[in-house]
Amino acid sequence: MLPEDTKAWAALALRNLPQSALVELLRAFGGPADVLSATAAKLRNVVADPIASRVTAQVDEAVLARAHAWLEVPGHRLVAWGDPHYPQALLALGHSPPVLYYVGNPDLLNARSLAIVGSRSATAQGTDNARAFASALSDAGLVIVSGLALGIDGAAHEGALNARAGTLAVVGTGLDRVYPARHRDLAHRIAARGGLLSEFAPGTPPRDFHFPQRNRLISGLSQGVLVVEATLHSGSLITARYAGEQGRDVFAIPGSIHSPLSKGCHKLIREGAKLVETAQDVLEEMGLALPAPGLQSATGAPMSEGAVLDALGGDPVDVDTLVDRTGLAADEVIVQLTRLALEGDVASLPGGRWQRRK
Amino acid sequence: MLPEDTKAWAALALRNLPQSALVELLRAFGGPADVLSATAAKLRNVVADPIASRVTAQVDEAVLARAHAWLEVPGHRLVAWGDPHYPQALLALGHSPPVLYYVGNPDLLNARSLAIVGSRSATAQGTDNARAFASALSDAGLVIVSGLALGIDGAAHEGALNARAGTLAVVGTGLDRVYPARHRDLAHRIAARGGLLSEFAPGTPPRDFHFPQRNRLISGLSQGVLVVEATLHSGSLITARYAGEQGRDVFAIPGSIHSPLSKGCHKLIREGAKLVETAQDVLEEMGLALPAPGLQSATGAPMSEGAVLDALGGDPVDVDTLVDRTGLAADEVIVQLTRLALEGDVASLPGGRWQRRK
Repeated sequence: MLPEDTKAWAALALRNLPQSALVELLRAFGGPADVLSATAAKLRNVVADPIASRVTAQVDEAVLARAHAWLEVPGHRLVAWGDPHYPQALLALGHSPPVLYYVGNPDLLNARSLAIVGSRSATAQGTDNARAFASALSDAGLVIVSGLALGIDGAAHEGALNARAGTLAVVGTGLDRVYPARHRDLAHRIAARGGLLSEFAPGTPPRDFHFPQRNRLISGLSQGVLVVEATLHSGSLITARYAGEQGRDVFAIPGSIHSPLSKGCHKLIREGAKLVETAQDVLEEMGLALPAPGLQSATGAPMSEGAVLDALGGDPVDVDTLVDRTGLAADEVIVQLTRLALEGDVASLPGGRWQRRK
Repeated sequence: MLPEDTKAWAALALRNLPQSALVELLRAFGGPADVLSATAAKLRNVVADPIASRVTAQVDEAVLARAHAWLEVPGHRLVAWGDPHYPQALLALGHSPPVLYYVGNPDLLNARSLAIVGSRSATAQGTDNARAFASALSDAGLVIVSGLALGIDGAAHEGALNARAGTLAVVGTGLDRVYPARHRDLAHRIAARGGLLSEFAPGTPPRDFHFPQRNRLISGLSQGVLVVEATLHSGSLITARYAGEQGRDVFAIPGSIHSPLSKGCHKLIREGAKLVETAQDVLEEMGLALPAPGLQSATGAPMSEGAVLDALGGDPVDVDTLVDRTGLAADEVIVQLTRLALEGDVASLPGGRWQRRK
């Protein structure tokens, strides 16, 4: 049986609420189950009517049942905001999905990583380059993140799969529906040796508008994005744009001025992306010139759990009080509270208040 | 017979004086003939002893005779600081050679221009690119400047030779010694339809240390430098470095990360050169997106002759007085005075003073 908290996060995520509204609701009511059990009247005190209606609306039971069934499979997991494995890199962005569906080694979610992306219709030289860079950079300690697409993405996963730090595939469908079908075998090998991740519930089919959202997750998870080959209309340029907005490094491999598959990379370089010729160039730009001594299992982002626990004191307090006491942002306080609740250190009380358990 | 002034400039240039010393001497004595006829004692009042000794030292009469013989040939000319055809772009640098030996259309010396340079051992794609860019950019109104070397240089000259604005070859030997020999026919065609230029006297053989000096002239004459293909050890990177120091635009064409002949270009791009894929990219970066309406025969640099002439007044004055009156630099005042003297508007008097003639 799935923990109630997992079910509540899965059900709440299906409401597809704006992050700011979700933060307000968790702030007011406590955990995800508290939000879901709140009355319509109480919800409307916190968020606008259309948002409140989305919380109280019936969700398709078949969809929820499919998610539950997927999560029951050993090795499948839901990584929610409160989970210690939730990627710190995404939290820092301020637009992170509340849950991630995941199969694989959860340590990869907070490892130092680099996205390698590019065109689906790559040249043979392009896929060779993707494979070689991915293999060398994974060996140097970077998890290689990509989108499981044909062409450059697949070659990047292949190159990193048997290398030191491994690979993470971020897909735009439910994890029970591998897309493209030609990558079914690759997806299974990634799930076994790396990680396969989606913000979409099991059963979600491929939809055009999901792919830009997936691309934002790829860049958000990574410390940098390397574009290997891309036309001027490639989705990789969207990933690179997100990366720039998210403060990530953007790298691009140049090529012949007569190849349409180099034009996207050249555009990025003209706009400020770093031209790289070797994996070593990437490592130097990232300040990682020497291979890391071991797989980094955390980004080193400061953990604020201690501060939140200290700020709780003995009496029940609400999130706003903790925001005042810690100086942290409300969403960060909520993430830490749900994490502490999972660890049994705090309990959520009615009225959005929280109390220490020990 | 050659004009006395031409002979004096040729003889003075053979002394190979530092520019600052030459400016001081012209400032003190007037024109080049005045400097050469000054006594050693008077020279030592103006410049350090070793410089004074270089002025009074005998120059090889055979060398001078060879220069005179070359200059007697119709179409051959000496373009000295005072010559209205002397390139304004070089004057602005502050380290321009006092004389240039030249064959060809003198209007090209002050036309809007772009250097196209690269490796001697270029690929077939590289020479194709050089030829195509040179042809398109010459048609757009830019004189294509290069160094007559094998490979990229030769292809750039070939591409521009029959296009609208033509081409200028800057060589590191005397103009009677075409180097490399394989480009003898090309050099003749350039002399007939474009321009062939050297700061070295006729008879000067190829010498390693002359080529960097030649490269500085190539970049100095041009508003920008385009590097087509270059290894990391190519002399083209020296030209590009001069161009950067001289405030010129630097452009580079990218290529495969596996080609040694692209590594120099990639290095330049990483250091700030503009990656270009098309001739149009170059024109846009130079603010010349549309083909110019006609061949530009001047850079549009402000002419200061009027100011110098106005500042002369009625009485003889020295250069320092003119510097005070005009606010111009001493070398610029001297350049304008020698130009006005050639036009018959001013006369140089003993003691480095100048007077209006009308």
